[in-house]
Amino acid sequence: MLPTAHCMEIDVNFASDNWAGATPEVMAALGRANDGAAPAYGNDALTQRVTALFAEVFETPVEVFFTATGTASNSLGLAALSRPGGLIFCSNEAHIHVDEWGATEFQSQGMKLVTVPQVAGRIAPDELATTLARYPEGNRYGVPVALSLTNATELGTVYAPEAVRALTGPARDRGLAVHMDGARFGNAVAATGATPAELTWKAGVDFLSFGGTKNGCWAAEAIVVFAPDRLHDLGARRQRAGHTFSKSRFVAAQFEAYLSDGNWLRWAKAANARADALRDGLRRSGQARLGWESEANEVFAVLPKGTIARVRAAGGTLYEWPAESMAAQLGPDEDLVRLVTSWATTVGEVERFLGLVG
Amino acid sequence: MLPTAHCMEIDVNFASDNWAGATPEVMAALGRANDGAAPAYGNDALTQRVTALFAEVFETPVEVFFTATGTASNSLGLAALSRPGGLIFCSNEAHIHVDEWGATEFQSQGMKLVTVPQVAGRIAPDELATTLARYPEGNRYGVPVALSLTNATELGTVYAPEAVRALTGPARDRGLAVHMDGARFGNAVAATGATPAELTWKAGVDFLSFGGTKNGCWAAEAIVVFAPDRLHDLGARRQRAGHTFSKSRFVAAQFEAYLSDGNWLRWAKAANARADALRDGLRRSGQARLGWESEANEVFAVLPKGTIARVRAAGGTLYEWPAESMAAQLGPDEDLVRLVTSWATTVGEVERFLGLVG
Amino acid sequence: MLPTAHCMEIDVNFASDNWAGATPEVMAALGRANDGAAPAYGNDALTQRVTALFAEVFETPVEVFFTATGTASNSLGLAALSRPGGLIFCSNEAHIHVDEWGATEFQSQGMKLVTVPQVAGRIAPDELATTLARYPEGNRYGVPVALSLTNATELGTVYAPEAVRALTGPARDRGLAVHMDGARFGNAVAATGATPAELTWKAGVDFLSFGGTKNGCWAAEAIVVFAPDRLHDLGARRQRAGHTFSKSRFVAAQFEAYLSDGNWLRWAKAANARADALRDGLRRSGQARLGWESEANEVFAVLPKGTIARVRAAGGTLYEWPAESMAAQLGPDEDLVRLVTSWATTVGEVERFLGLVG
Amino acid sequence: MLPTAHCMEIDVNFASDNWAGATPEVMAALGRANDGAAPAYGNDALTQRVTALFAEVFETPVEVFFTATGTASNSLGLAALSRPGGLIFCSNEAHIHVDEWGATEFQSQGMKLVTVPQVAGRIAPDELATTLARYPEGNRYGVPVALSLTNATELGTVYAPEAVRALTGPARDRGLAVHMDGARFGNAVAATGATPAELTWKAGVDFLSFGGTKNGCWAAEAIVVFAPDRLHDLGARRQRAGHTFSKSRFVAAQFEAYLSDGNWLRWAKAANARADALRDGLRRSGQARLGWESEANEVFAVLPKGTIARVRAAGGTLYEWPAESMAAQLGPDEDLVRLVTSWATTVGEVERFLGLVG
Repeated sequence: MLPTAHCMEIDVNFASDNWAGATPEVMAALGRANDGAAPAYGNDALTQRVTALFAEVFETPVEVFFTATGTASNSLGLAALSRPGGLIFCSNEAHIHVDEWGATEFQSQGMKLVTVPQVAGRIAPDELATTLARYPEGNRYGVPVALSLTNATELGTVYAPEAVRALTGPARDRGLAVHMDGARFGNAVAATGATPAELTWKAGVDFLSFGGTKNGCWAAEAIVVFAPDRLHDLGARRQRAGHTFSKSRFVAAQFEAYLSDGNWLRWAKAANARADALRDGLRRSGQARLGWESEANEVFAVLPKGTIARVRAAGGTLYEWPAESMAAQLGPDEDLVRLVTSWATTVGEVERFLGLVG
Repeated sequence: MLPTAHCMEIDVNFASDNWAGATPEVMAALGRANDGAAPAYGNDALTQRVTALFAEVFETPVEVFFTATGTASNSLGLAALSRPGGLIFCSNEAHIHVDEWGATEFQSQGMKLVTVPQVAGRIAPDELATTLARYPEGNRYGVPVALSLTNATELGTVYAPEAVRALTGPARDRGLAVHMDGARFGNAVAATGATPAELTWKAGVDFLSFGGTKNGCWAAEAIVVFAPDRLHDLGARRQRAGHTFSKSRFVAAQFEAYLSDGNWLRWAKAANARADALRDGLRRSGQARLGWESEANEVFAVLPKGTIARVRAAGGTLYEWPAESMAAQLGPDEDLVRLVTSWATTVGEVERFLGLVG
Repeated sequence: MLPTAHCMEIDVNFASDNWAGATPEVMAALGRANDGAAPAYGNDALTQRVTALFAEVFETPVEVFFTATGTASNSLGLAALSRPGGLIFCSNEAHIHVDEWGATEFQSQGMKLVTVPQVAGRIAPDELATTLARYPEGNRYGVPVALSLTNATELGTVYAPEAVRALTGPARDRGLAVHMDGARFGNAVAATGATPAELTWKAGVDFLSFGGTKNGCWAAEAIVVFAPDRLHDLGARRQRAGHTFSKSRFVAAQFEAYLSDGNWLRWAKAANARADALRDGLRRSGQARLGWESEANEVFAVLPKGTIARVRAAGGTLYEWPAESMAAQLGPDEDLVRLVTSWATTVGEVERFLGLVG
Repeated sequence: MLPTAHCMEIDVNFASDNWAGATPEVMAALGRANDGAAPAYGNDALTQRVTALFAEVFETPVEVFFTATGTASNSLGLAALSRPGGLIFCSNEAHIHVDEWGATEFQSQGMKLVTVPQVAGRIAPDELATTLARYPEGNRYGVPVALSLTNATELGTVYAPEAVRALTGPARDRGLAVHMDGARFGNAVAATGATPAELTWKAGVDFLSFGGTKNGCWAAEAIVVFAPDRLHDLGARRQRAGHTFSKSRFVAAQFEAYLSDGNWLRWAKAANARADALRDGLRRSGQARLGWESEANEVFAVLPKGTIARVRAAGGTLYEWPAESMAAQLGPDEDLVRLVTSWATTVGEVERFLGLVG
């Protein structure tokens, strides 16, 4: 990869928020944490402090389990609810269903994901009700175990607290545990203006895959547990799965910077603001349209194929997205693309991109 | 944890090499790697460069799979050999057998670890032969699949290349694949003076769990594959297990610093030298004896219980180790302890400790 | 259960074909096989003879693995294709998807079932093509591994050889293995008039779950493998799963009676003929209609709720079936029911039932 | 296999008790159960009656789960105790450890079997204590979960009630569940003269793999649960593993005959008596010796190699057994063999065999 090409590439980069590096604050915290020896496997003082910080952010006692990836958080957390014949309800666009190579089925020894139709990534309460009704207790199809929601959703939309409650209510009435995949939880908090507590345990969520990686960390993922009685042997599951970091403080340090001084929300707001600017610009361009309205840091745009080629020729990165996620039809010369902004996306990048769209 | 206690704690710290932080070189490399955007999931230029660096270090083409932990490397690599009813031969002190909470059994869907007696952590060829003879082909006990060796061993000793070959030869004659757990591989290379190639593929090793974490990195572990035809679907297994880092460059950067300019061997030599000083001092002290001779950065010492208490009172950390690892008997007032040195252990720490032993 | 109730119950029994016992021929064969000692675990002469009989019936060499249930055959066979991240395509009514409590996900360590829409239980080639197109090689969704078809289908319809080929052709072009769930394979052969070979390996099927239990045996299930190179370690998988019967001859004896003298097809024809009579009678009754047309031994009928109650009051057994399997809508006083005939269903039972329908 | 050879083979058959067929009583019961239709999956009247019969035999309420094999009973039952990192203690000769191809590790998602030394198949209480002491609570080795005993043992010996209690007491003090592998439970009851209750729940056993197959049935295995609170989701586990027979009454009928009128104990006594006669004859022969004393229907004898050849030449079947099970050494011209008697072994067979020994 030549230096020049590298520069071009990052110039207009909307490929994914995991293409960004770590923020200066995260790097500085790692440097501070590097002083001296500390007990391994999470028994160090910094990991303990960060757990307390999570409790503060969520305004409630929590158990916190660091893992290496969001896939690990999702699959280990859901597996801790594991029952033979268990069924997990999620949207048909859920990352756990379409992107994780059967991780949840694997960790849970074969639980099945039952998909619920979504619109722009969000499950509607009546669709959930219809699907749940198909799986009554004690029937031949298995045992309903959990509802898994993603917030922000895989399609860039968000659930506000009342929207979360509208889904968790019926789920809890059926005895289901509720999981939230928060790979972009910061972006959801920033977009809704709700508190972390309001979006989670106050709205009926039992545990959260809390992702810091996409929003300014190197590798900082955690399972945040609000209802420890529902999950079994999570620490032991993590150990067996090889997800217990020995030098735990290197994750803790990232989270310390992330959660301190409102950094995480500041970074998420920046990413969301760049996405807002993209959405505004695309709407006004006359040369493109939005596949659907979104609120967080992912923008889905219908662009002329020529425009996509032009962006790439200029060194920009962006990915096509399956058109079946969209209600409307694509024209023959159009494609749907996903544009992801991050804490590192600049106003200039957005402007250059919109300039290329025309 | 009060600052004072913290200072005391690190003053004489032989608890484990994973209590140390990262080296300045690793921190600097992380800083350099943090510039700009880069493709995720290992498709970045730095990860590609580091793979080439591994090939250079091992003097042969290799496939490299980063993972989060040594347990992940061991269990995913061994599972990639997976067969129903499969048997893996390892020492009865092997980390995969006694420390990983069934990780290999889990990832491999139930392969069984068959233990071979060891002396000071090393398997003797005749013991391996005896055990292999108990598991002929086509019998009711299962299917022999692999031999797993640890170098440096869990008991601080090392296998020189000829000692590796003396075990891999009979194993390969039986069709077994050979795994090496190299959580402390740098210490083994440093202690034997052999090349990485001589200790691995030239001696019949098919894949290596290569650990950087204990020897100066934050979290840098990789499966280094010399014989890719023997392992199946390793990339897919890693994905399903949640061990594919999105921001791969943060691991790559650590390995870049680690493998460049002979840093890893310099750090390993430093740790080994501190252990040598401990061994020498203990032998000369008249107040202690070695549980057995070791060569790498772990020292096993028989100390009076009063001495252990004195070290702890002075803020030192060290752990008792099961006496059954030892051929000799403990006296009533003695305990066996493990002392681990790291790249960060100072000459002063060693001297303070030996001063406390008396 | 009082004798009287019992008599009433069996009088008009359309609950399922696994409510019937074994045929006299099967019982007689069990008696014959009971003479003397014989090697265990399938090494007996009778098991060997029956394997040869399977080869004769299918006109090709086959490997045969007895199992305890159809769920075991399906899940062990599919697991023998297992790859991490593997995807199996099947209809959304497939027994492996809706009735087996995650057995295939469990045995295969997390492979995922991707459902294809069906009409009356049959997948249409264009629906399969659409679904396959969504899962191109090398994408983020996983690795396409197999197509699983059921014949006769779960909704009582059958695939003729050309219909099988229309699905297996595109599947094989994509490199997929093809599985057929033949829990009611005899009924499919009887209904289509095709040979067992024409419906399976000649039409691109790699392995078949061959069920004898529903059609006149006690417990006689087998995985019949036409393409052993595609399945790995099936014998070892069966052993590990506890499905290797020690007294194998008790299954072999059942299959001997089943496959000899065309018994299995005679029994399947009888069951199909009773279903034909039910279909005819219902069509002519004016009081009921068929949910959809079927050809094998399952009949799906829309009945007035009053009729259903009347049948039950008369001691009849039959089960409601989810109306979502049906294209048309139910009226407010109607229910969809499934009526299953077996080798043991009598003409009298059919007549009594039709008499109750009115 | 020629008829003549077949006759010779069964003439002196001590290969295994699973080479015998089913008793006339079992065949008759199967015939009786074959009348009419009955609900599937264990909801039939006969299965219900047989569950009551088990409760009567064991003098306590029990849950009963039929399975296809003893391996299934063992592995599903133990997996129902499953915890990540779980440890199961068993003898180093335990069938679950050496004969089941990792079935328990597989079903339990990686629990580990920790072996305890045995003498003639029996664990001594002090050996169990020593091993348990190596695995204290909360340590790095995993979580002690269960003790598994086999009665009659794999080496033909039995535990009397007090011997069971001497092991279950310390195990229960540590919080372990207790499993008994009763593949030859009838032979243990017959040999000890204890009641089924005295050998199980009254002696601290939580669940039993109850085998009928080796002692006169075709395929009749059940998990008998005395402490259902300790096992989780056993029915669902069985379903997912493909071990829920649809025509449950075919197993129930076998057990009905087995458990009625003391048949099972009569058959077991017959087998044990033939083994006693073998033991007596061998002791008196001057040409052979016992490898160790046993009490149930397995006899382990040290024979001159010439004698073994002579028995085989006469059409007899018997198997060599690993000499490492024996405390004493074999002479150069000797081999250790296992002789198994069954309900079907005749006095004539024993006499012919002893005549060949000379």
